[in-house]
Order: sequence, then structure tokens, then C-alpha cells
Amino acid sequence: MFATILELRLVQATLFKNVLEAISDLFSKANFDFSGTGLELQAMDTSHVALVALLLRAEAFNHYLCDRDLSMGLNLADMAKAFRCANNDDIITIKAEEDWSDTVTFTFESPEDGEISIFDFDFVGTNGVPLEIPEFPESEYQAKVRMPSAKFMRICKKLSSFGDSGDRDTVVIISVDKECVNFFTRGKTGTSTIVCRQTQTVDKPKEPTLIEMKEQVSLAFDLRYMNSFSKGSTLSDQVTISLSSNLPAVFEYKIAETGYIRYYMLPRIEEDEMQRITKEDKMQNEVDEMQN
Amino acid sequence: MFATILELRLVQATLFKNVLEAISDLFSKANFDFSGTGLELQAMDTSHVALVALLLRAEAFNHYLCDRDLSMGLNLADMAKAFRCANNDDIITIKAEEDWSDTVTFTFESPEDGEISIFDFDFVGTNGVPLEIPEFPESEYQAKVRMPSAKFMRICKKLSSFGDSGDRDTVVIISVDKECVNFFTRGKTGTSTIVCRQTQTVDKPKEPTLIEMKEQVSLAFDLRYMNSFSKGSTLSDQVTISLSSNLPAVFEYKIAETGYIRYYMLPRIEEDEMQRITKEDKMQNEVDEMQN
Amino acid sequence: MFATILELRLVQATLFKNVLEAISDLFSKANFDFSGTGLELQAMDTSHVALVALLLRAEAFNHYLCDRDLSMGLNLADMAKAFRCANNDDIITIKAEEDWSDTVTFTFESPEDGEISIFDFDFVGTNGVPLEIPEFPESEYQAKVRMPSAKFMRICKKLSSFGDSGDRDTVVIISVDKECVNFFTRGKTGTSTIVCRQTQTVDKPKEPTLIEMKEQVSLAFDLRYMNSFSKGSTLSDQVTISLSSNLPAVFEYKIAETGYIRYYMLPRIEEDEMQRITKEDKMQNEVDEMQN
Repeated sequence: MFATILELRLVQATLFKNVLEAISDLFSKANFDFSGTGLELQAMDTSHVALVALLLRAEAFNHYLCDRDLSMGLNLADMAKAFRCANNDDIITIKAEEDWSDTVTFTFESPEDGEISIFDFDFVGTNGVPLEIPEFPESEYQAKVRMPSAKFMRICKKLSSFGDSGDRDTVVIISVDKECVNFFTRGKTGTSTIVCRQTQTVDKPKEPTLIEMKEQVSLAFDLRYMNSFSKGSTLSDQVTISLSSNLPAVFEYKIAETGYIRYYMLPRIEEDEMQRITKEDKMQNEVDEMQN
Repeated sequence: MFATILELRLVQATLFKNVLEAISDLFSKANFDFSGTGLELQAMDTSHVALVALLLRAEAFNHYLCDRDLSMGLNLADMAKAFRCANNDDIITIKAEEDWSDTVTFTFESPEDGEISIFDFDFVGTNGVPLEIPEFPESEYQAKVRMPSAKFMRICKKLSSFGDSGDRDTVVIISVDKECVNFFTRGKTGTSTIVCRQTQTVDKPKEPTLIEMKEQVSLAFDLRYMNSFSKGSTLSDQVTISLSSNLPAVFEYKIAETGYIRYYMLPRIEEDEMQRITKEDKMQNEVDEMQN
Repeated sequence: MFATILELRLVQATLFKNVLEAISDLFSKANFDFSGTGLELQAMDTSHVALVALLLRAEAFNHYLCDRDLSMGLNLADMAKAFRCANNDDIITIKAEEDWSDTVTFTFESPEDGEISIFDFDFVGTNGVPLEIPEFPESEYQAKVRMPSAKFMRICKKLSSFGDSGDRDTVVIISVDKECVNFFTRGKTGTSTIVCRQTQTVDKPKEPTLIEMKEQVSLAFDLRYMNSFSKGSTLSDQVTISLSSNLPAVFEYKIAETGYIRYYMLPRIEEDEMQRITKEDKMQNEVDEMQN
């Protein structure tokens, strides 16, 4: 027998299930890096527009043994399928052995009826991931919005159901000013603007929408990416969106004191979009008017 | 700024949501006529078999301002999408401004969290609508059936799940005699007849099935239209079906004292259908027998 | 009028609904044999891999009149559609008349609102069914597993969601030894093994998994058939799987003292599968290890 070099245990499958649901539809493969401090996962989408970085510290696990640094590429689609089979309260064990270097074993054990499901995943290549993701200092971003993650998901769904750009991806323009963040898209015969005002400190302390703005910013994004990112809502009640015209946008979900999931996405900068922004400014006037 | 020439408000989005669900899958565009007395909507399906006429009197709205008569064509698919995003208790405002003659603005405001969604719809052409729909005097119809709208919807669903005419539309034959209305269709290897007997005054006063018959009538219709019409059940507990061999059938849902929605549909008169009717008569005998 | 030669009544449509759901997706036509003792149904799937045999004794019905032995082929897809329209508490009547030899009539009557649906099904040919199914003596089978039918269905679903054999049908290997039954399949980049251990008599008397093994057995089956069979779980809480390398496997669901439904299926014996079994043995070692 070979020596076990990696053995992790989670007494509730939920966390890992949610992580996989939050990344597997956009990213087909990911790099998993296990070290003494925890698990880091990185993946890039096939069109190189978006990137996800996940950190789960060793403390997130009920048992964490990692004898040496291990890096492996895994197919997320297959893993997501396996995890969909798991019950939320299954006990998960992740295990790799020395010299059996091409697979990792995930075991789900039902505490109820003792049923065991064993999945052996082969390693796959990961197209240039891991990448060096520079830490972008918070001070460099023109605007930051923190809002309930469920609200952000609902907005993405609304925009998706209305937006229609024919063959092209539907584009959303996010505009931030001091008092509100607006999401704008275009349907076949009309336009939609969703206006979220900053929460006044008094009225809803639990689920605030907070805006930190240094400069007004208005950026265009592909809606389908935002839709995928919004699934991070199962991992955190709040999402923080950092925007700057010259940097990739960051959508961050903190995972209860033990890590985070961060989605990075390049804004679209096209003339066509700029024209839309202009149109959108007209909308903004209308909004301002309504509020007065 | 331009003067507001139209401003309507509904404190509950439900009514409008239901109206759009009831018409948008069959009719792609509609003509909206706003006047001092209320909103009239007319649409014809692309194959010119069915027509819908809606009336919502001014009193149906919580606020109704209409300075001059306005007529606009709107794309119902886009509107339905927008309304699907609205919560049932959203406050809707419909607004048009003088000299900004090519769009109308629908605003949904959530009373809970103050989130505002603004939709601007462009005007579209409407292929010959509005039409002159003659008022057909009640006395001209051979038979009238009033029945619970939920029951009518359930019957349409049953017939749809069973009916199968291959590439052609599934045909339903509605036959009315003094005591019952029958719905007949044909599957691949069999036939289905649904028999609804007139309610005896005593047993179920709340949801009666009532038949007024001057002459026995048996007419063939396209099931997919009936299926669409049956969505009117969200607007009224009762549907009234008026049938005559020489007139378009009318399926009418009253909207609580403030209006109605009426679907008009031409019956199919084909030799093939007549043969089916014959077959159906055989069925009828069988039914009669069962009841005796 | 013709004399009634067959008249059956069930005061609850549920039983028949469940029977049709359990067979209609795999078997398109079936032979129905009515006799004094009850209804026997037989069907073979189009690829001649699987066979179903159902017995419903006369006592299963609330009323059972059968004047002479009757054999008829019926289209199950049409019947399943008809039954999907029926409510669970509808009263079903099945009726055939002398000299009207080409159809059978199913009538559903709602006890609530008296709505009646009448279905007339034409007889169809049944491709060589009924067949002589030999009674395989229990003693000939190498292994027998009795397990909760819901558990078997869940396992089939798990395997389906993970398994992926591209264009070919997904293959499952069932292996039985004294203490556990394992279900093994292969995804795109990994493998899955579900391990069900025999229940210890003490811990869960209500839903036991029991294994009777004379010889270790490991057989390959098409998953899609197993998936269809597993729908029998609506008819019985337990399923019994009988396996032998030289006999068709039997999946049997008893219907509360009044009959049974038995699915027969040929195992796949291919070199390719044998290689998988080898792989699977490696898995088995792993499982053994886990359990020690």
C-alpha cells in the first residue's frame, strides 16, 4: 500500500456542493492546490474573459492532513455531477496517495444509512492555470458596492429574462454614483433599468446596500458571466463588487471566516457600448427625476 | 421637460401580470388604446384565426390620468418578460409624455425594499389592428356554456396531453346539448371524450356549470388556441363560451366589475372534422347509455 | 346493444396510474390478458433486451367481471397519457363488449365533481408477445438482494447523473458478495462506486438490505433499463434483484398481496465490460480497505 499524502474531511457536504455549483457552469476545469494552509482553486473560462479564485483555509475542514504541496487539474463538470448526488449532510473525505499520482478519491458517506459513494477523478490539464493574479489594492478602485447576494442574483435574473441581444451576449451596464447603482440592459423593443439605492443607515441594518464611490463609473459586462457569478450567493449573504474603468471588476463572496471566492471579469469597452451608455444617461435623468 | 399626457398607477402588479400571461403566448403584438374611460387592447394572432379584446375601465386603476386619446402598438413578448420580473405586490406606473411619442415607460416599485425597475417600450406596428369587432347579440348564439374557468383549463390540459394529430394542430370538438357539454379529441390509438354535466341547482352553487341551449351544436376548434384562452382563468373564476355554427365562438372572462377579456375564434369546418363528429356521435350514444 | 363481456372497477386510479408509469417509458405496447383469475400483462422492449410481466389478481379490483378469456394488445404511450389525466381518487371502469372486438373503454369518474372522461383504445399488434416466460427456480440464482425500492431508485439516479459513455448506453456493473452489493459506473474523467452494505438485523428492521449469496457475482447492465425498472418503487417498498451469470436478471416488486411486477433483463457480456470489472475489482479493494 502507498502512504496517504492528502486526507481532508468535511462533515457536511453542503459547502463543497455550493462551491462546485458556483463555478462549474462557467469553468470546465480548475487547478486545485493543496498546501499546509488550505486549498486554493483557480480557473479561467475558455474565452479568457473571467477568472475565479477560491480559498478554503485548512480550518474550514473538520480534518486536514496535507504532507506536501499538491497541485492537480480536475474536470469540474464531472465533480459537480458527483456532488449533485451527495446529500447535504453526507461526510466527505478527499484522499490522495503517494505514487498513485493520477487520481484523487472523493468519498461520500451518508450518516443515516451508511451508504458510501466513492468517486475516483483522473487528473486533467488546465490550460495555463494557475495564473499569477495580482492583488489589486482596494484604493485603486473607483467604486465599490456591497449588497445582499440574493438581491444581486435576483437582479441578474431579471436582466436575463428581459435582455436580448440576438446572437451576441447580452450586455449589462453597471453605473455607480454616490447614491445608487443602476443595472441597464436592452430587450428587443425596449430597455430595462434596475435602480438600487444606497440603504439609509436607519431602515435596514441587516441587508444593506452600501456604496463607496471615489469617481462615477459606468462599465459594460457580459450578463452570462454575471449570472454565473451570482451563484456565489449560496456561499455568502453579501457580495462586494469593485469597479474601475482600467481594472478587471471583482465580485467577491466571503466564506464565513474560512476563505472567499473571487470572480474577476474584464469589462467590455466598445464604441457600441458607449452609445448605450449615452442612452443610459438619458435613463438616469429620468430616474433622478422620479426620485425628486 | 415634456408634459405628462398619460399616467396610470396600479398598486398591485398582479392584474397586469395576469393579463399579459393570458395573451402574450398567442398574440405577439397588441394595440393599446387609452382614453378617458379606460384601456382597450386588441390583438390578432398571426394566422388570423383568433382575436382578443380586453377592456380595463379607468376604475380598475388606483390612479388614472389620460389627457387625450392615445393609441400605441406594443410588443407583448417583451412586456410579458418585463412583467415576469415584477413581484405581485409591486406598484406599477405607466407613463407617456408629450412629444416623446415613440415610447411608453412602465415602472415597477417594490414597496418592500424600494428597488425600482424601469422599462421603456418602443412603439411597434400592429398589422391591421385595431379591428372593428361587431357586437354579436347574445340571442344569435345557439348555445352558451358558463363553467368554472379552472375546470375549463383542466379540460384543455387533459385534451392536450392526450390529443395527437401528428404535424397538424390537434382538433377538439365541443358539443352542447341540454344537459351536458362534451369535449372530444383523438390520440394515436384511441379517442377521449370529457363529459361535463350541467350542475343541478342544489349540489354546488359556488362553481356551477350552466348551459343555455337553443339548438344542439357541435363545432371543431384548434386545441392550442383553447389552451391559450384558458389562461384567462387567472382573471376570473368563470368562463362563458358562446357557440354558433355560423359565428366566431367567444370565450369571455369578466374582470371583477372593471372589464373583461374576450377571445374570438373561428370554428374549423372541414369534411374531415365532420367525419370525426360522426364518430363522436357514436361516443355520445355511449355516454348517454352510461348516464342511464 | 352488445353484451358486456368484461367489466372491471377500481375505486382509486392510483394503482393503475403507477403501473403505467412503471412500464410505459420502456415498453411501447403490451399484451393484456384478462381471465377469471385476473389481469396478466406482458411486454418486450423494442431491442429485445428487457421484458416485463405484471400480475394483478381479480381481488385487486373492487369489481371484477370477466365472462371469457380476453387477450388484447394496447399502446402503452396512449394509455399512460390518459392515466396522467386521471386524479388519484378517480373511479376507473374498464369495459369491453361482445362483437365490438377492436376497442376497450376506460372511464374515469371524479367522485368530487362528477366529471367523466371516456377513453376508447384501439387494439394494436404486439410483436410476438405474449411469450412463454419460464419460471426460474430461486435455487438457480447465484445471488439475491432485497433492498428498499426507494434506495434502488436513488442509486440508479445517482449513477445516471454521473455515468457517461458518450453515444453508447451507460453500463453499470452490479457486484454482490456476502456483505455488500456494489454499483459501479464510469464518468468522463472518473469512476463512481456506490456501496450498500447488508443491514445488521438490529439497527433498521423496517427497511433492510438483505443479501443471499451462494456465489460472488459481478454483472454488467444497461443503466437506462435499470432506471425504468426503478419506477416500480411506486408499487412496492421493496425490490428483489436476482442475479446469475447464465440467466436473465429479475427485478421484482410485489404489489400488496394482489400481484407483482417483474422485469427481466439480459446482462451484457462483453470483453470491454470484463475489463471494467477488473478495474472495478481495484475499486473493491479500496472499499474493503475503507471498511477495515
